[in-house]
Amino acid sequence: MFVSTRLPPSRLFAYCQRSLFTMAGAQSQLKPVNGQDRSNLIPFSSRLKEGRALIQDVWSIFAAVNLPADCINLGQGYMNFAPPKWVTDSAEEALKTVAPNHYSHPRGRIRLREALKAHYGPQLNRDLDVESEILVTSGANEGQYSVFTAFLEQGDEVIMFEPFFDQYLPSVTFNSGKPVYVPLHPPADSIKKPTSDDWTINIDELRRAVTPRTKMIIVNTPHNPVGKVFTKAELVAIAEIAEEFNLLVMSDEVYDCLTFDGKEHFRIATLPGMWDRTVTVGSAGKSFAATGWRVGWLIGPKSIIQPTLAATTRIVFCTNSPLQEATAAGLEQADKHQFFETQRAEYLERRSILCEAFDKLGLKYTLPEGSYFVLLDVSKIEIPDEYTFPETVSGRGRDFRVAWWMAYEIGVSSIPVSEFYCDEHAHIGEAYARFAFCKDNDTLRKAAERLLGLAKYLK
Amino acid sequence: MFVSTRLPPSRLFAYCQRSLFTMAGAQSQLKPVNGQDRSNLIPFSSRLKEGRALIQDVWSIFAAVNLPADCINLGQGYMNFAPPKWVTDSAEEALKTVAPNHYSHPRGRIRLREALKAHYGPQLNRDLDVESEILVTSGANEGQYSVFTAFLEQGDEVIMFEPFFDQYLPSVTFNSGKPVYVPLHPPADSIKKPTSDDWTINIDELRRAVTPRTKMIIVNTPHNPVGKVFTKAELVAIAEIAEEFNLLVMSDEVYDCLTFDGKEHFRIATLPGMWDRTVTVGSAGKSFAATGWRVGWLIGPKSIIQPTLAATTRIVFCTNSPLQEATAAGLEQADKHQFFETQRAEYLERRSILCEAFDKLGLKYTLPEGSYFVLLDVSKIEIPDEYTFPETVSGRGRDFRVAWWMAYEIGVSSIPVSEFYCDEHAHIGEAYARFAFCKDNDTLRKAAERLLGLAKYLK
Repeated sequence: MFVSTRLPPSRLFAYCQRSLFTMAGAQSQLKPVNGQDRSNLIPFSSRLKEGRALIQDVWSIFAAVNLPADCINLGQGYMNFAPPKWVTDSAEEALKTVAPNHYSHPRGRIRLREALKAHYGPQLNRDLDVESEILVTSGANEGQYSVFTAFLEQGDEVIMFEPFFDQYLPSVTFNSGKPVYVPLHPPADSIKKPTSDDWTINIDELRRAVTPRTKMIIVNTPHNPVGKVFTKAELVAIAEIAEEFNLLVMSDEVYDCLTFDGKEHFRIATLPGMWDRTVTVGSAGKSFAATGWRVGWLIGPKSIIQPTLAATTRIVFCTNSPLQEATAAGLEQADKHQFFETQRAEYLERRSILCEAFDKLGLKYTLPEGSYFVLLDVSKIEIPDEYTFPETVSGRGRDFRVAWWMAYEIGVSSIPVSEFYCDEHAHIGEAYARFAFCKDNDTLRKAAERLLGLAKYLK
Repeated sequence: MFVSTRLPPSRLFAYCQRSLFTMAGAQSQLKPVNGQDRSNLIPFSSRLKEGRALIQDVWSIFAAVNLPADCINLGQGYMNFAPPKWVTDSAEEALKTVAPNHYSHPRGRIRLREALKAHYGPQLNRDLDVESEILVTSGANEGQYSVFTAFLEQGDEVIMFEPFFDQYLPSVTFNSGKPVYVPLHPPADSIKKPTSDDWTINIDELRRAVTPRTKMIIVNTPHNPVGKVFTKAELVAIAEIAEEFNLLVMSDEVYDCLTFDGKEHFRIATLPGMWDRTVTVGSAGKSFAATGWRVGWLIGPKSIIQPTLAATTRIVFCTNSPLQEATAAGLEQADKHQFFETQRAEYLERRSILCEAFDKLGLKYTLPEGSYFVLLDVSKIEIPDEYTFPETVSGRGRDFRVAWWMAYEIGVSSIPVSEFYCDEHAHIGEAYARFAFCKDNDTLRKAAERLLGLAKYLK
């Protein structure tokens, strides 16, 4: 990590304030005039102070390298299996030719844009224009960052439902926006076996959050970390607010191919009038088990895509070419291989393996109807009093300590959920740990077995 | 293109100003109250107005798709040959395994960081720390963007030598900085056969450009588009200014492996004291003929790398994994294959083929001692009076018209150089067209032959 939590960002910033140095000549003694050493000559931008960019993020604290070697990693949401061979084969073919090793058009390779048109067109009921309504980005993350760059003015407010995917916060503040949080209310205590549907929104709360400075709403469905698949009724209500206050809707749908229990993924862009103000976000990493490919995309009207193209062109210029070709092949051949149906069935089995362990323990968790995360209620897990934690963990919420202890003593890592809340509301998230089930069955079975060891630590 | 040059950005921006809409209910008529249509509901950020992000960039105007099918493309600087097979083989191997298909650490894959340490350490005379002094980025472009994000405050000034690589301008303004231009003076008219060394800096002009708001200097050596390899004396003089005024130096050295005529690439970071304030930028695309891989890197002190890590982690999260593995293999095995020496000799031959044509024509050009670009002085080329141009071209400098005409009538495309100047100084660039010689010999010979057709159009 690069900033110890021992040194709060404000102090660290002060420590780095600009100072001038004198020198008698080019090769002379380099000696600061005010006693500051040379290890921090140039002050970094104050934007890093906002958006929690300076504190160590949860992914780094719970990175495999910080955990015991034999810990089973159900923390960060990447697969422990490779993309389908027929997809990686296409990447290998692309590498053998000339053009796919060189710059793509900043909009993305035409083969991928055509494949996206064929994939999304029927779902959006639109004959998509590959030149102005589809934009390939360097992962969904960079695509979303570029939307913020393209649309946010200083102080523009962006509403997000909380818990939220943690990258939204700095992505908004780096682009001079202000995050505004509206709660996803946790399931009532009375619900013995909650599903992700039991996390609810209150549309009046959303309406009250709108101010004259509100520019955007982020919708994330299926939702990370809750797994909630927003219903059509919920999306209609959100759309009404967006329409009434002329808001841009960024609909992060990177888990769109992972819904379960008959729950249908609904695209807010298909509601009347919503196409004009919605950008839909997708990801090759999530769709094809290739989180390290950094290929994502945005689908929306020309009025949103073209300014975002202007932004992404300057930020990354273009996205890597060989893996765009492979992603195109993945979309082109998905039906032939019944890929998404098979993948969904596999994930359903993975979910069962993990949830059965929690059921056996009698621990409450949210059964996710989408995505590949399970939120476990960790309030009933008691950590031995004498247990000692590193400072990166002890300074954070109870969920950080529980997740750390489970990683070391039970041998299964997870992600504490307070990270998905703003500081003010972090206490709500402290009740949960997020387990990713994007792992093969054997790994999940082994993890499930270990998790049964929690039994003797329950209140 | 997304904004016609017919509609100036200011008007277009006004056209898109925010307006509110009324609706009687969720599914009701969606009708703007003030007569605005729904094709531009959400105003884009004013930052797109700055930095020329809204006008069609030169790369799009001169994209192959806009030029005759049989035009030889010496415009955009990508190769018409593939990376070495032993490098792409490593990418294919990576794709066959699990981990290199998934997220890398935001710092970059450890194998690549180790390879960069081995490659750069001896050149920088440092035992580089792979955890805090090396950062892999999604292309050099995104790496540089992240430095601006990490260090620029509103109104901070960034000095760049003009002509400048055109991406610097919007990258600075998007991050609320202000570009400040210091000229690279073109060769004196009296010099019959100028080399890139005849483009000179005046250190007093650089000093006068510094204000209390100056935060950074961008050094680009070997220089795009001039080909200039900055001398040690020039870099010492720049370093003195940086030290005197406590400036961060971003040294864009992506063409570092391409210097000719015994000219040595010198790294400003190796000057006394300069390590502490310099970030050195490199690129796999330029080093290994893989411009579409989007793998770049930054080398510098912890005080620069770590804030930049905080920025890039939020912008792209991480860089694509399989091509990082391949880049690592490229660096690891370069010596064994005598890769850089061979590549340099090949480029020298390519340069000769192109320059011989200009010599035969008696046209003045700048012989580049680095990079893969030749600046041709096009002032003596006369375009037929009656020639008609598309509006994207006719509204720009004379160099745009000459380059367009050459692409259509001579059959060789190039890039007009006024794009590499700020608007105020664009007239200086109008004298030049940039030809890229990163093409195979046959293509260059064919281009050279076609260029001889210019003979009857010379003043």
